[in-house]
Amino acid sequence: MPLTPEQAAEIDAQRAQTPTRRAVAPALEAILYEPIPVLDHGFVRPMDYMGTDDSIVQAARVSYGRGTKRVSEDRGLIRYLMRHRHSTPFEMCEIKYHVKLPIFVARQWIRHRTANVNEYSARYSVLDNEFYIPAPEHLAAQSRGNRQGRAAVLTGDEAQRVYALLREDAARTYRHYTEMLNEGAEGDPADPARQGLARELARMNLTLNIYTQWYWKIDLHNLFHFLSLRADPNAQYEIRAYAEAMLETVKRWVPLAYEAFLEYRLGAALLSATGLKVVRRLLAGEALTQAESGLSPREWRELLALLGRPAED
Amino acid sequence: MPLTPEQAAEIDAQRAQTPTRRAVAPALEAILYEPIPVLDHGFVRPMDYMGTDDSIVQAARVSYGRGTKRVSEDRGLIRYLMRHRHSTPFEMCEIKYHVKLPIFVARQWIRHRTANVNEYSARYSVLDNEFYIPAPEHLAAQSRGNRQGRAAVLTGDEAQRVYALLREDAARTYRHYTEMLNEGAEGDPADPARQGLARELARMNLTLNIYTQWYWKIDLHNLFHFLSLRADPNAQYEIRAYAEAMLETVKRWVPLAYEAFLEYRLGAALLSATGLKVVRRLLAGEALTQAESGLSPREWRELLALLGRPAED
Amino acid sequence: MPLTPEQAAEIDAQRAQTPTRRAVAPALEAILYEPIPVLDHGFVRPMDYMGTDDSIVQAARVSYGRGTKRVSEDRGLIRYLMRHRHSTPFEMCEIKYHVKLPIFVARQWIRHRTANVNEYSARYSVLDNEFYIPAPEHLAAQSRGNRQGRAAVLTGDEAQRVYALLREDAARTYRHYTEMLNEGAEGDPADPARQGLARELARMNLTLNIYTQWYWKIDLHNLFHFLSLRADPNAQYEIRAYAEAMLETVKRWVPLAYEAFLEYRLGAALLSATGLKVVRRLLAGEALTQAESGLSPREWRELLALLGRPAED
Amino acid sequence: MPLTPEQAAEIDAQRAQTPTRRAVAPALEAILYEPIPVLDHGFVRPMDYMGTDDSIVQAARVSYGRGTKRVSEDRGLIRYLMRHRHSTPFEMCEIKYHVKLPIFVARQWIRHRTANVNEYSARYSVLDNEFYIPAPEHLAAQSRGNRQGRAAVLTGDEAQRVYALLREDAARTYRHYTEMLNEGAEGDPADPARQGLARELARMNLTLNIYTQWYWKIDLHNLFHFLSLRADPNAQYEIRAYAEAMLETVKRWVPLAYEAFLEYRLGAALLSATGLKVVRRLLAGEALTQAESGLSPREWRELLALLGRPAED
Repeated sequence: MPLTPEQAAEIDAQRAQTPTRRAVAPALEAILYEPIPVLDHGFVRPMDYMGTDDSIVQAARVSYGRGTKRVSEDRGLIRYLMRHRHSTPFEMCEIKYHVKLPIFVARQWIRHRTANVNEYSARYSVLDNEFYIPAPEHLAAQSRGNRQGRAAVLTGDEAQRVYALLREDAARTYRHYTEMLNEGAEGDPADPARQGLARELARMNLTLNIYTQWYWKIDLHNLFHFLSLRADPNAQYEIRAYAEAMLETVKRWVPLAYEAFLEYRLGAALLSATGLKVVRRLLAGEALTQAESGLSPREWRELLALLGRPAED
Repeated sequence: MPLTPEQAAEIDAQRAQTPTRRAVAPALEAILYEPIPVLDHGFVRPMDYMGTDDSIVQAARVSYGRGTKRVSEDRGLIRYLMRHRHSTPFEMCEIKYHVKLPIFVARQWIRHRTANVNEYSARYSVLDNEFYIPAPEHLAAQSRGNRQGRAAVLTGDEAQRVYALLREDAARTYRHYTEMLNEGAEGDPADPARQGLARELARMNLTLNIYTQWYWKIDLHNLFHFLSLRADPNAQYEIRAYAEAMLETVKRWVPLAYEAFLEYRLGAALLSATGLKVVRRLLAGEALTQAESGLSPREWRELLALLGRPAED
Repeated sequence: MPLTPEQAAEIDAQRAQTPTRRAVAPALEAILYEPIPVLDHGFVRPMDYMGTDDSIVQAARVSYGRGTKRVSEDRGLIRYLMRHRHSTPFEMCEIKYHVKLPIFVARQWIRHRTANVNEYSARYSVLDNEFYIPAPEHLAAQSRGNRQGRAAVLTGDEAQRVYALLREDAARTYRHYTEMLNEGAEGDPADPARQGLARELARMNLTLNIYTQWYWKIDLHNLFHFLSLRADPNAQYEIRAYAEAMLETVKRWVPLAYEAFLEYRLGAALLSATGLKVVRRLLAGEALTQAESGLSPREWRELLALLGRPAED
Repeated sequence: MPLTPEQAAEIDAQRAQTPTRRAVAPALEAILYEPIPVLDHGFVRPMDYMGTDDSIVQAARVSYGRGTKRVSEDRGLIRYLMRHRHSTPFEMCEIKYHVKLPIFVARQWIRHRTANVNEYSARYSVLDNEFYIPAPEHLAAQSRGNRQGRAAVLTGDEAQRVYALLREDAARTYRHYTEMLNEGAEGDPADPARQGLARELARMNLTLNIYTQWYWKIDLHNLFHFLSLRADPNAQYEIRAYAEAMLETVKRWVPLAYEAFLEYRLGAALLSATGLKVVRRLLAGEALTQAESGLSPREWRELLALLGRPAED
């Protein structure tokens, strides 16, 4: 499922430049339609967008009216909006991506419901023979301490065996998929003695690492929410790789909003009510133990790590 | 609350044409940023958009993949999508309007929750002295038969009295609003002996026909849903006037989708299960009465009207 | 992945009856928590609900206020709301299901974004060895005329071969999944010489017919939208089977709304603007051909079928 | 617009207790249907609900499956979910309120789009003669430093004058509203010589402090979002009063989730990336000035206030 000749032709046509009166983001235009490679066969392609940093400022100024004369600096205003959770001005920007991704990643991704999606349908069409196989540095063992975590990478015989199983099972299930479909050239059956199983049924024999693709469109506020969850170190590596590719496009598209996002969201930390009290007491010079803190042992460890203090217990 | 000098300057800047690689809708570009007058002081201005008819087709082709080679004609494909309620390709298009409208209209409008909104805030800023007063041909009496309907227009003394009341009450409440605010030049109090009531409180003295304004952004699928309800003859005239202005912009933006919308939504009719049976029996030549139809008297009348038949009962 | 002992215990506890002042739907209470079997290993279980037909009426009366004294009959009011697309009163009812379903069905289902979902996570836990294998009467061939349709069922050697492939591939990929996981009793590795692949990676080797499960919660208006699409004859059989099971629960829960839904949605028909003109002309006795109708050949055939007329062309 | 006799009768009927198999929240049941007074004529009434703390736990356990055996304690699990932004289990709970509130509050409230609403319609029915007039302790002056803030309360002549204006304008506009409507007993015109202005038009003469009412239904996750914004000290007092009344109902409904919400949301604090660095340096004993901090003067002041340190600059 690489780009179809039709898609490629469409894109060539669109690459031509046309005058517009809309706000334009030149740095994003420079890579529009370009696939950014992700994983072994996937990509993220920025396809279309609406609005720029200026649109965020313009919307905020309609909301706050003549009252914002003094907040004359755009960067400061955007940071103010992000800091105080004024989310609606960010919703005035919209972006559309073309994404190629393994189905198990697509299933995590789609849980974000505030986007518009058009996915390639295996009910109508035949999927291509492309499967995700992790690179050696991502073939991770199960963490024993953290149920959703990964431990060190697999090596040696165990790694070899896993690769063999993943590759063979993907290849075999795909081969059987095409055999069951029995589709030949020009829509004729490959084997005239067989009818061929319905596409909507045959697809069920494919494994979850086969690649699908979709158009995915979202506003900037909701994209930031997606990225704050999926570019987080706790996110599964495979979806994080997509989030990181998208971060690059956001940086080109709305650089001021991107910077504010790093400062007040992605790099920010939440202190619980009790955690805040602990910080105040520590700053006042109090020597505090976990037992005195009101925090659970786990929260205590997490807070000390956040504050860059050696874990004393 | 006409356009502020700042807004006007922004718009001038944006009217300059810049090259883009995005899909462009030339007929909409031609009126971008232009206010379309609505009611006595209101307007609808298309401010930004994303996607064209081509984007709908492109999204449908990703979904239906190589399977759609035969449906080669864009117009046919768009009509097919609309007819069969395949709504996601229409969601790939997005539009943003700047709207100036009376608050009682804004309250109906905002019930459509699938849009992004930035409204002028009377908590932060002072509203302008502009109120909606119906034109004589819209000063309608209450329908006695239909609770949400209008009857003939008011005339003579009654009309004069209504105009006087609407105008005087709007003027007086606004005058008192500014008196309570006590705002002078440069943020100083008008009357130094008084503090001035908080803006967020003073606004409560204004009547529901004062004008507000907002940026409103929505995808094409949800816009069609909005328009199918608000451009309907049963919608209140004042919001219908806005819907009709927007229809003109949609026609310029996505002419094929617009045409399909008229055919399969705005001009279409829903037959209930029983209504469908009645039509079949009528076509078979049966002479049917309401009592035999299985429809309520009201549904029977509505069906006959829909079918262009004289109401026989 | 049948019910876990924990889930079963929870359910026993919940089956005890407790007094409530909320509106109660006795016919739904009678089957609460009961799994309705769907496909070979799946089910739909109504788990919780809020509101009844009375809640719809109550909400409509708040909206329409004292004005609705005359529309005193609940059934008539609910039908009126459904007929005139007054959707908000139906949103006052909410239902929660526990559903067990194959992943390829879950992927269609999740495209309805207006619901709340908690899905079993194969990132955290190990999936059970249960796969969907179509019953013989559902092992359908690909339709040649209709890309998304099914033709006659497969039989004989072809059917045997398809069954063998589906069963063997599911069994083999699952066996390899557990081998890669290397999980033994009590969280110890099965083979101490191996670390075991991370669960979040190993799952990618499973085929799309493995069963997953989720809690799915939705309001009645959006449930009707889901059911109108998924209980439709054009929906894929496997998801339609779930929609039909849910219809039974809706009938028990809100019988008046259910009846109105059948009349004005599921059994209703949409006439396009041109289709409506054709019906009027036919009723007026005009002998009309497709060429004169303004409809495409396909729309003409569909209209005649809808009207119960022999296709004359 | 107090409760209508019809509504009161409905409520009496519902107060009777019926057995249910659903999860029940006894402390919320105890006040179900009871209006909690807010402002001078408003109220919040919990009308219906679905789910309890147990439903949150149950949903989390379906997601995390057998893997959560060890997190056996419900309170700990709910706190974990809240801390780590796992929002979907909270979406399994739903609540419905009946709220009576001034229109200018309703306009702020409705910006939260993730709820279901049925509002009393002044298009269909006549509004009652009830207006919000602030209590003396809430008749606040405009803050000069903070555009959206309030300063000290108005007193003396200025307060008297504001009260007179608010009361007289509300009374006069309402009197003219009823005059324009010209509605007498039994739907007859009060003055037979006049037709009466359509209700949908006459309402525009009312001021924004008139009371309206609605049913408002929302899931617990989105309710927490609403409450985190509207129970915040920066929210306008009039909407905060409603948020605080709702907090009491949430405490009765889902006490464990409520406690976690106070700890990790309402009482929590967000440190920006730079703010976090500052805290680390302060804890390391560094004497830091605003200029060295990388924070703007305003952010510096806000951080010191948060940390309970005297503002040194």
